[in-house]
Amino acid sequence: MVTETHFQKELEALKENLLKMAAVVEEAIRNSVQSLVKRDSDLARKAFEVEDRINKMELAIDDMCLKLLALRQPMATDLRFITSAMKITTDLERMGDQAVNISERALSLNQEPQIKPYIDIPRMAEIAQSMVKDVLDAFVNRDPKLARSVCARDDVVDGLNDQVVRELTTYMVSDPKTITRSVHLMIVARCLERIADHATNIAEDVIFMVDALVIKHHADEKKEEEV
Amino acid sequence: MVTETHFQKELEALKENLLKMAAVVEEAIRNSVQSLVKRDSDLARKAFEVEDRINKMELAIDDMCLKLLALRQPMATDLRFITSAMKITTDLERMGDQAVNISERALSLNQEPQIKPYIDIPRMAEIAQSMVKDVLDAFVNRDPKLARSVCARDDVVDGLNDQVVRELTTYMVSDPKTITRSVHLMIVARCLERIADHATNIAEDVIFMVDALVIKHHADEKKEEEV
Repeated sequence: MVTETHFQKELEALKENLLKMAAVVEEAIRNSVQSLVKRDSDLARKAFEVEDRINKMELAIDDMCLKLLALRQPMATDLRFITSAMKITTDLERMGDQAVNISERALSLNQEPQIKPYIDIPRMAEIAQSMVKDVLDAFVNRDPKLARSVCARDDVVDGLNDQVVRELTTYMVSDPKTITRSVHLMIVARCLERIADHATNIAEDVIFMVDALVIKHHADEKKEEEV
Repeated sequence: MVTETHFQKELEALKENLLKMAAVVEEAIRNSVQSLVKRDSDLARKAFEVEDRINKMELAIDDMCLKLLALRQPMATDLRFITSAMKITTDLERMGDQAVNISERALSLNQEPQIKPYIDIPRMAEIAQSMVKDVLDAFVNRDPKLARSVCARDDVVDGLNDQVVRELTTYMVSDPKTITRSVHLMIVARCLERIADHATNIAEDVIFMVDALVIKHHADEKKEEEV
């Protein structure tokens, strides 16, 4: 019994670390986009600094998971939870990479006049950040309903991305001088769309994980009835 | 001893399945880009069909890994190998998604006159495919040298992507009628760059996995000497 309690504590620590990592990634996204909106290149550089921290967090959490797998040899639910956690750290790290990509574009864009006030891009960023936060909450609390709401938001982000591409295409057609900046902005929008995709991938895993449990649970119940 | 041999056989089966999944992904990339080059929309539709197969392969391999973890409770090297395999299936599945993205763009592009003969994009695709193949070989054979060569090719793909963006920007500036098609092509190039990124991520994992083993091995040797 003592061991199980200890194992539960370790799982709690794992959850906390995942939530912390997600918070750092959220901050990186916020800084990268705010750097663009506020034309403040220092914020972009902050996102670069955070990248190293995110990479280290990924390694540390993966290590934690490997130790849990090796020493605790968890079964069924916990096993799937821990291996999913390892996939999630990869997603979070890649989101951090996207924030770095956005920051790079921001540094270029901030050196030239702004084509137009940014409206859709900050909205995309806000939704993407909420997706990162909520999908991690959905994961640690095994909440498929929240996970489904994350998937729904992905469509909104995709729609905004299409809108950004359409609008910037119009700019490019009417004034070829805006082409380079428009391409930078399209890439920023695409990075945000990728971040939303990562969050959606995690959400799908959460739904799959919980549904598998539900199906398994029903199967077990049936088996018990048969017995 | 019987159990260990059986476990080794299961590991071999896992490796074979990973290589098979990689081959299917390679084929999806090839079909999606050839659909563009040959203006053959049937090839693009093939990539859509393959997506479902790739998704199922991901689930099947993950399941295999979970069973190995639960039933064999592997330690150290094998443990890391199996958890890495689960991360790799995610990367392979995402590469498949990129092939689908390329196919979607191909379907649009094939309905309009071609801006120019495609040269850099098929080259990018060829390199990306070689990266997918080699990085899986590097993983199953624990070959960090081959993994490093994969990382090196990523720079070539990035360079080609930059070139495509520059060239298409010139087209857009000189003839705004090409803008929509140029944006589609930029996205195709970016998808290929993403595929190369996924391969590079796996390559880095392979290098890390093997180096960690090397470091651990030296530490063990030292310990033995001390004893």
